[in-house]
Amino acid sequence: MSREKSNKLRVIPLGGLEQIGMNITAFEYGDSIIVVDCGLAFPTDDMLGVDLVIPDISYLLENEDRVKGLFITHGHEDHIGAIPYVLHEINIPIYATKLTMGLIEHKLQEHGLSSQVRKKVVKFGQSINIGEFRVEFVKTNHSISDAAAFAIYTPVGVIFHTGDFKVDYTPVFGDAIDLQRIGEIGKKGVLALMCDSTNAERPGFTASERTVGRQFDNIFAENTSTRIIIATFASNVDRVQQIINSAHKYGRKVVVEGRSMVNIINTASELGYLNVPDNTLISVDELRNYQDEQTVIITTGSQGESMAALSRMANGTHKKIAIKPNDTIIFSSHPIPGNEKAVGNIMNALYKKGANVVFQDVHVSGHACQEEIKLIYTLLQPKYAVPVHGEYKHLKAQEAIARQLGYDSDHIFILSSGDVLEFDGKSAKVNGNVHTGAIMVDGLGVGDVGNIVLKDRQRLSEDGIIIVVLTLESGTGRVLAGPDIVSRGFVYVRDSEDLMDSARAVLNDTVEALEMNGVTDWGKIKNEVKNALSDFVWHETERRPMIMPILMEV
Amino acid sequence: MSREKSNKLRVIPLGGLEQIGMNITAFEYGDSIIVVDCGLAFPTDDMLGVDLVIPDISYLLENEDRVKGLFITHGHEDHIGAIPYVLHEINIPIYATKLTMGLIEHKLQEHGLSSQVRKKVVKFGQSINIGEFRVEFVKTNHSISDAAAFAIYTPVGVIFHTGDFKVDYTPVFGDAIDLQRIGEIGKKGVLALMCDSTNAERPGFTASERTVGRQFDNIFAENTSTRIIIATFASNVDRVQQIINSAHKYGRKVVVEGRSMVNIINTASELGYLNVPDNTLISVDELRNYQDEQTVIITTGSQGESMAALSRMANGTHKKIAIKPNDTIIFSSHPIPGNEKAVGNIMNALYKKGANVVFQDVHVSGHACQEEIKLIYTLLQPKYAVPVHGEYKHLKAQEAIARQLGYDSDHIFILSSGDVLEFDGKSAKVNGNVHTGAIMVDGLGVGDVGNIVLKDRQRLSEDGIIIVVLTLESGTGRVLAGPDIVSRGFVYVRDSEDLMDSARAVLNDTVEALEMNGVTDWGKIKNEVKNALSDFVWHETERRPMIMPILMEV
Repeated sequence: MSREKSNKLRVIPLGGLEQIGMNITAFEYGDSIIVVDCGLAFPTDDMLGVDLVIPDISYLLENEDRVKGLFITHGHEDHIGAIPYVLHEINIPIYATKLTMGLIEHKLQEHGLSSQVRKKVVKFGQSINIGEFRVEFVKTNHSISDAAAFAIYTPVGVIFHTGDFKVDYTPVFGDAIDLQRIGEIGKKGVLALMCDSTNAERPGFTASERTVGRQFDNIFAENTSTRIIIATFASNVDRVQQIINSAHKYGRKVVVEGRSMVNIINTASELGYLNVPDNTLISVDELRNYQDEQTVIITTGSQGESMAALSRMANGTHKKIAIKPNDTIIFSSHPIPGNEKAVGNIMNALYKKGANVVFQDVHVSGHACQEEIKLIYTLLQPKYAVPVHGEYKHLKAQEAIARQLGYDSDHIFILSSGDVLEFDGKSAKVNGNVHTGAIMVDGLGVGDVGNIVLKDRQRLSEDGIIIVVLTLESGTGRVLAGPDIVSRGFVYVRDSEDLMDSARAVLNDTVEALEMNGVTDWGKIKNEVKNALSDFVWHETERRPMIMPILMEV
Repeated sequence: MSREKSNKLRVIPLGGLEQIGMNITAFEYGDSIIVVDCGLAFPTDDMLGVDLVIPDISYLLENEDRVKGLFITHGHEDHIGAIPYVLHEINIPIYATKLTMGLIEHKLQEHGLSSQVRKKVVKFGQSINIGEFRVEFVKTNHSISDAAAFAIYTPVGVIFHTGDFKVDYTPVFGDAIDLQRIGEIGKKGVLALMCDSTNAERPGFTASERTVGRQFDNIFAENTSTRIIIATFASNVDRVQQIINSAHKYGRKVVVEGRSMVNIINTASELGYLNVPDNTLISVDELRNYQDEQTVIITTGSQGESMAALSRMANGTHKKIAIKPNDTIIFSSHPIPGNEKAVGNIMNALYKKGANVVFQDVHVSGHACQEEIKLIYTLLQPKYAVPVHGEYKHLKAQEAIARQLGYDSDHIFILSSGDVLEFDGKSAKVNGNVHTGAIMVDGLGVGDVGNIVLKDRQRLSEDGIIIVVLTLESGTGRVLAGPDIVSRGFVYVRDSEDLMDSARAVLNDTVEALEMNGVTDWGKIKNEVKNALSDFVWHETERRPMIMPILMEV
């Protein structure tokens, strides 16, 4: 359902997974809608076989004529990953900073969409006038370069959206977050602050990215006789820069390994976000020309991802790099919740190969802790607080911070996906909601896996399937062949012949009784077969495999 | 293969999962074998549908006449959980302290085994002479009462096995770890120390269980106007004792919720390990007779287990307890690696219901940190170090501690499952290995789920199954019915009719071609059908569902 035009500002989060992962928010006023960010999410544990999840943008499609542009805060997957899918449905111009646009461009090319899409690279301090809105790009810091906050000027006031951010007074590349401008915007008056909540549970300040560089220097100084392998996030260009700096200082050559990291490093180099001294980077094939202590390998897989380069090295399935005893392996990362076990498993595998694994203190977060959040609130002094980014508990933690700063509950809004937060210049309230959802992508299929398919996969994964086939004579319903049974994922059949023989006997009895009673209704036959076998199997094994009777007629 | 008798002491870990989870170790000398602990493991992520995992005890069965007894250090599942399964195969006497035996007894009764099993309750300080061995029970501390270390006296020297332990100078129940006796045993000379490694990565000391009691008092003092719900480990009797103490002090009634916790609390009360003031415990049905601020609910589910009581409360599916706004909910636990996401999801669900969730500082570990490990080494001064309990990285961390204490690599042994560590009185070495393994239990089936079944479940869970049925005429091989296709867990069929129609057309073409060419070999027909459909499906969807052709003959 389209919403009528009005002189109210509406803010609507459209990420269908309760804002975990998929960042996408609509801002609308009158005949103008702009969208901030367009991210994907990775499947939760119950989304068996699903590759990734994208937002349902029905609401934007219903209001297609009003949608003016897509503004992207930074180049992480949960902010740009759904762009190709969404632009496939609705062709709107994209506004982003240079590195962010470079990463988007790479994605669009992969999907064959690049030439059709209008793209505008925006500099910090620059504003875009679009419909009823003006969007100013404000410099921030984050775990990827070129991250922006947006000051969104609307007829009813200014909304400040931080994107994902931290305060880094000594960033590795470029400037510190533009606190002066943020203060100036605040001084002029801000209606609402939408602030990153990811680290709102953590007290204090997030350390500068630069501190990690000193750790690298220490580790390089202490490990002069071994190869060094460093796993980190593919997109953390500044981290890679610092590894390259340490490598250069200690006379080592650098190999970058892992497809996603190579892509991002190439883009960042081309656009001038990475400064690589001549003759520092070598290819993986050139490794053999150097002693171990002359090399560093930077690799993907710091989250224990099973297909990433580090996993393949740990499991001995990497084609070109084998872990050696005494390799020094550094996890320059922190496990994202849910990945702890996978990371631990890789560490165990590396230790078993004799490697020395370094884990602690070689990482800093890209998100603001409590004192930084207070700083932004204090510079902007918004009328309303709208915590964003993070799980519900993180939003609640930012709410607690806002309460400490004097906001009462009428001035704090924790939105659910689809909630319409309405500002009329005087007050703010949640007024209705729009349809949102999570669309699952599996292989080439977008949206053809739904809850029924997932439930079936769940059931199949737990106890497998038993198929019962029966051929009946047309007209008479006499059994011509079967019942035959075949199973997969249920028991190891060779060790369970007695069980399967007894199951066949049960089915024979059932089918005979049905024949004797002249039952020819297929629905009834299927049900009886299913129930008889299901009861037998539960009694014998306490398992509930899916049971599929298939009837054929000849 | 049986090993010959000899005058060597052999120590053999028999837990088939690289010592993660299933603790079971054989000690043998001459014609005597004793077994320490007999635990189960919970399935890893790739063991789809599996309920639990038990050790393969082929080695003990091959040497059945020599196996003299089973000694249990404490009552946690990873030390006692496999007892009913193992005793079903080999009837040997069990030796354990009182609470531990109470928990084992409960398990044996559930499996109808209690009357056939010889059980001896042992006191701390007492020794059991059995075959070539003498086993002395030494008091330790852990997150369950009545935990024991074993000093195992053998003809070639003393092996000291700590079990899971910590050093608690101010335990809630009973005495502190018997450091005097440990020193005395050390003074007389110890051949090898098998020491708990779980917390070997953590510096310092583990805090006393009693410190958690003070936290509870603080929380009770601060939350006098709301209901309090506390989730913790079912087996941590001392933790429950402290909650009951605080409840009593603050005039609240206590409900214990969750089957496993009720069982353990009952056993602990009966045996005198829990001191409950009169009129403190009430049933869940009596909750309605009290104001919220007069009650405390102690519940299972602190690890986010989906079927536990806390999950059901959070999801609104608990029959008797609904979370209310302002409930104070305390996680008195720390997520076990791999459970972080599940715990986070429950916290989010609780926050959404308006509850106040307390997480930090309401838990202490039951395992020794680095300084405690050093203390035990220093008291015992063993000739050899054999780190046990924990993942490989934890064993390596204890190895590093032993190196700091002056042990060289010849005197430290990190064993894999099945490794035979041999002591002859002069030296020690790993000499061969025996068969071990992990047996999966699914419902009533023990060992009937193996790798083939798991691979099928994995495949089914990712992309589902397509079944192709075909009825052929006996003799001629003429197609009488079909090919029909049915799928489950592949695509949502109603939205994918075109795809399924095209798949049918592909199959019709394939089958026609086979008929034209007079192919009647069933293996060949199945292969052709499978390949044709598989290629088509991959091309259209980039998915690889399991494809099962089923032929019937009439």
